[in-house]
Amino acid sequence: MFKQNEHQPEGFQASLKETLDNLKYNAEGLVPAIAQQHDTGEVLMMAWMNREAIEETLNTGRVCYFSRSRNTLWRKGESSGQVQLLKELRFDCDGDTVLVSVDQTGPACHTGRRDCFYWKADANNVTIDKTPIIDPKELYKK
Amino acid sequence: MFKQNEHQPEGFQASLKETLDNLKYNAEGLVPAIAQQHDTGEVLMMAWMNREAIEETLNTGRVCYFSRSRNTLWRKGESSGQVQLLKELRFDCDGDTVLVSVDQTGPACHTGRRDCFYWKADANNVTIDKTPIIDPKELYKK
Repeated sequence: MFKQNEHQPEGFQASLKETLDNLKYNAEGLVPAIAQQHDTGEVLMMAWMNREAIEETLNTGRVCYFSRSRNTLWRKGESSGQVQLLKELRFDCDGDTVLVSVDQTGPACHTGRRDCFYWKADANNVTIDKTPIIDPKELYKK
Repeated sequence: MFKQNEHQPEGFQASLKETLDNLKYNAEGLVPAIAQQHDTGEVLMMAWMNREAIEETLNTGRVCYFSRSRNTLWRKGESSGQVQLLKELRFDCDGDTVLVSVDQTGPACHTGRRDCFYWKADANNVTIDKTPIIDPKELYKK
């Protein structure tokens, strides 16, 4: 579906069902999902979604991933309280990646930092350059 | 390395070598890499990098991925001319994702669109909402 329609003009539509049937899930039935803060453009995190997580996200307006470590749906914020409200969900040209535009409450990262990308690299070293905005002990004490 | 240092303060450093030794590569030796335009914040594309691609990117300042379809290093723009100059390379909290901040010449997407995320979803349909900025026939005729 993705390949044969890549030359279609703006406004071309396909059903969500056909789209989800044609996503390129990996061997575990997952696709990577990038979360971006809708107003600032910050890339907050990358996680994984299965078909059910995508459907739930679109139906509820609250971002749901699939946790590979817990092997279950992961409604972002269910234990930390730091939810992601959905602004927009997109698929890429070859149907193997999801981009969600979100409104993130507080930190997206389990370390209490606003986003997960706090290790900055140069040719020799990597350096932590972000500080938690909430103590992670506070985040998961509930 | 990532887990045991997640509570370190800003300024904490590790060597690039140790970092690359400890990335969580998948079974194919790859990690997902998100490319973001440095000034506008647009998420341009998601591709994959192996260790060599990360090292080359940091050493040359030009973004290099690993092409899963061609099974070789992919210097972005080598056939299309649409290169990505590196502004910043980051790793996430659990060491399984790369974020590159780039300066993208022209379209990032092989379809000639600025970015790859041109299929916008709602609860029932997906709709193409972006137009190529260059005819893809022009892009690959060289």
